[in-house]
Amino acid sequence: MDGKLENSSPILRSDKDGVAVITLNAPKSINALSEKMLAALSDLLDSIALDRSVKIVILRSGGKHFCAGHNLKEMSARRADADGGFQYFQDLFARCTAMMLRVVRLPQPVIAEVKGIATAAGCQLVASCDLAVAAEDATFATSGVNIGLFCSTPMVALSRNVPRKMAMEMLLTGEFLPAARVAEMGLLNRVVPLADLETTSMDLARTIAEKSPAAVKIGKRAFYEQLDMPLDEAYAFAGRTMAENMMAKDTVAGIEAFTLKKPMPDWTGE
Amino acid sequence: MDGKLENSSPILRSDKDGVAVITLNAPKSINALSEKMLAALSDLLDSIALDRSVKIVILRSGGKHFCAGHNLKEMSARRADADGGFQYFQDLFARCTAMMLRVVRLPQPVIAEVKGIATAAGCQLVASCDLAVAAEDATFATSGVNIGLFCSTPMVALSRNVPRKMAMEMLLTGEFLPAARVAEMGLLNRVVPLADLETTSMDLARTIAEKSPAAVKIGKRAFYEQLDMPLDEAYAFAGRTMAENMMAKDTVAGIEAFTLKKPMPDWTGE
Amino acid sequence: MDGKLENSSPILRSDKDGVAVITLNAPKSINALSEKMLAALSDLLDSIALDRSVKIVILRSGGKHFCAGHNLKEMSARRADADGGFQYFQDLFARCTAMMLRVVRLPQPVIAEVKGIATAAGCQLVASCDLAVAAEDATFATSGVNIGLFCSTPMVALSRNVPRKMAMEMLLTGEFLPAARVAEMGLLNRVVPLADLETTSMDLARTIAEKSPAAVKIGKRAFYEQLDMPLDEAYAFAGRTMAENMMAKDTVAGIEAFTLKKPMPDWTGE
Repeated sequence: MDGKLENSSPILRSDKDGVAVITLNAPKSINALSEKMLAALSDLLDSIALDRSVKIVILRSGGKHFCAGHNLKEMSARRADADGGFQYFQDLFARCTAMMLRVVRLPQPVIAEVKGIATAAGCQLVASCDLAVAAEDATFATSGVNIGLFCSTPMVALSRNVPRKMAMEMLLTGEFLPAARVAEMGLLNRVVPLADLETTSMDLARTIAEKSPAAVKIGKRAFYEQLDMPLDEAYAFAGRTMAENMMAKDTVAGIEAFTLKKPMPDWTGE
Repeated sequence: MDGKLENSSPILRSDKDGVAVITLNAPKSINALSEKMLAALSDLLDSIALDRSVKIVILRSGGKHFCAGHNLKEMSARRADADGGFQYFQDLFARCTAMMLRVVRLPQPVIAEVKGIATAAGCQLVASCDLAVAAEDATFATSGVNIGLFCSTPMVALSRNVPRKMAMEMLLTGEFLPAARVAEMGLLNRVVPLADLETTSMDLARTIAEKSPAAVKIGKRAFYEQLDMPLDEAYAFAGRTMAENMMAKDTVAGIEAFTLKKPMPDWTGE
Repeated sequence: MDGKLENSSPILRSDKDGVAVITLNAPKSINALSEKMLAALSDLLDSIALDRSVKIVILRSGGKHFCAGHNLKEMSARRADADGGFQYFQDLFARCTAMMLRVVRLPQPVIAEVKGIATAAGCQLVASCDLAVAAEDATFATSGVNIGLFCSTPMVALSRNVPRKMAMEMLLTGEFLPAARVAEMGLLNRVVPLADLETTSMDLARTIAEKSPAAVKIGKRAFYEQLDMPLDEAYAFAGRTMAENMMAKDTVAGIEAFTLKKPMPDWTGE
C-alpha cells in the first residue's frame, strides 16, 4: 500500500462476479475513521445500495491492520472551538453512526474481513457487519477506556453481538482479545490463518452471491427490523414478509425448480 | 414407520409417567409441516394444554429425519389461485406461526428431540421448543434462501436463540450445520450419539416431570413474558409472579419439607 | 470466619487502592439474603455509590460458599401472617430486586467472586454483577424449582446473561452446573483454581481501577440504559453520551497524552 494511493482516496473498490470489495486505504493512520474516510465510505455505500450488479460486499483493509477507530488528532484539533469541540463531536459521532447504520441497512450483506487490530469504532465496524471473518492473529478491543473515552457508540453494536458480561469486560478493561476468543463470544463467523483470509471471505461471499438477490435483500432487512420487536409482532411482520417473498419472480422460479428437482434458475433479482 | 400409519395420522401420541411423546409421523414427506400436519399438531397441543396428566412433552420424529419445514408441493399448487396464492400463503404462515406460538405458550415445557435434518420451519420448531436435544449426526439449516425464499419466520425464533452473526450466517448461506456447532451457538442443550437420543430426552423429561407442575407452569409462562420487557418492568412482573408462586399449595408444602429436611411431597399441581 | 463476626454484621468491607471488597459474612446460613443481609448490602451499596475513593467493587463471600439465595426459614415464619405471608413476600422480593438493581446502577463496576455454590438469588447476584470470576469447583443453580418455587426473579438476570435454552435448562431442571459450563454460556469472565481466585478478581479490579473513573461511570450507566432501546435510539443516546464524555477533564487530558505519546495523567474523576 503506497503513499500515492493513500493520498488519492481513503477507500478503494473492486468488483468481481457480483462481489464488491471495499478496501480501507489509509494504512498510515491505521485506517482511522477520519472525516474523509467516513464521508467516502458513506458515499460508496450509498452508491452500492443502488447498484444491482453488487450482490455482496467484503470490507477489507489495506496495510497490516483493519481499523483503529476515530482519528483522535483530527478530533483534538477541535478542542480549540469556542465550545471546546462539543458540537463538533456530537456531529462527528452522528456521522459515524449514520455510516454504521448504512452498513446495517445496505440491501446487500457485508462481510468484515479482519486482520491486525480492530479497535474502538473499528471493532464497532466489525460488529456492525452482517458477517465477519478474521485472521488468527487479529486482535479486538474497545480500548477507549484506556484514554478516558468509554467506547459508548461501539458498545451499541458490540453488546448486540456478544453476551453482556463479555461486552462489559472488553469495554471496562480495554484489553486486546485474540480472534479465537471473540469468535467464541459470537463476534466472528470464521477464524483462519492470515494466508487464507482473503479466500475465506471470498468463498463465503460467493456462496451468498449465488442466492437470489431478491430473497437476500428481503431477508437482511427483515432480520434487523424484527430483532427489536416483541415476539408476536415479529412473527406477524415476518409472516407478511415471507408471503411477499413468495410472490417474487425468482422465488416462483426457484420453488418450481426445487419441486421438479431441476437446477436453480438464473436469478433476476426480482 | 409404515405407510399405513402415515395415512392414518400425521402425528402420534404416547404417554408415560406424565411425559407425552408427540411423534411427527409423515416420514415420506420428511415430516413436512403440511396443512394437515399443522392442524393436527395445533389440535394436539390444545388438547395437551388442558391435560393435567401431562407434565412435559417430547417432540420426536418418525423416520430418519426431524422435519424439513413447509410442504412446498402443497404450496406450489396454490400458485393457480387468482392472486397467485398470496392470500393463501399469508394464511398458511399465520397458521404455522400460531402453531409455533402454541409450543411457546403451552403450560408444559416441550423438548425437541432431533435426528437427521431440521431445516427451515423444522429448524424453527427446534428453536421454538423450550429445550432441545439432538443426535450427533443431526444437521440444521435455514435453507430457504437456496431456493429464493428467505427463512423469515424461522429467523424470528432462530435469532432469539443464537448470536446474531451465527443466525445471519445460517440464514444467508443456507448451509447445513452439524449438531455440535449449533449447540455451541446455544440452540441445543444436549448432543449425544443417535443410539442414546431417546433415553437422553426421556431422562431430561423425567427430571422436569418430577418438579411441581404448578411451579413449572408459572415459570415457563413468566420466562417468555419477561424477556420482551425492560429490566425494571421485568423485575416488577417477576416479583409478583414469585409471590404468587409462594402461595401455591405445592410450594407451601415443598418449602416446609425443605426447611424440615424431609423428602419433597407428592405434588398436586396446585 | 467465626460466629462472632457473623453476629456483628452480615457483611464486611475492606478497601485498598480504590478497590472496595464486600464480603458476605453469614457463612452459617450460606450467606442467605436474609432481611438483615439485604438491608446491610443495600446500605453499603448506597454508601459506596457516593464514595469517590472507590473505583471498583469486589463482591466476595466468607465461608466456603458464595450465596444460597433467600432465607427460607425467615420466609416460612411469615406463613403465620393473616394473608399467609403474601404481602410480606411481595415486599421481600421487591427489596431483593431493589438491592440487585443497586448493583446494576452503582456508578462503580462490581465483580462477583464466586466459590462453592451460587444458587437461586445467589446465582441472580452473580448475573447482576457487571463481571464475574469463579473458582473451578464453584457450582451454579436456579434450584427453586426443586422445592416448588420457580426462580422467577433470578430468571430476569439469568436470561439476560445466557442463551435462552441454557437459561431454561437451569430454571426447569434446577441442576447444579460447574463453573466451566456456565462460563461457556456467558455467565463468567474467568474460571481459575480456587487458590488463584482472589488474585484473579483483584487483578481484574486493579486493571479497571486504573481507568478514568469518569469514563467508567459514564460507560457503565450507558451500557444498561442502551440495552433496552431499539438500535436507532440506542445510537442517538450513545452518541450524546460519548460527546459528553469527550468534555470530561480526564478525557481531555487522556486524549492529549495519547496523541502526544505521553503517559496517561493521574485521573481526577472529572
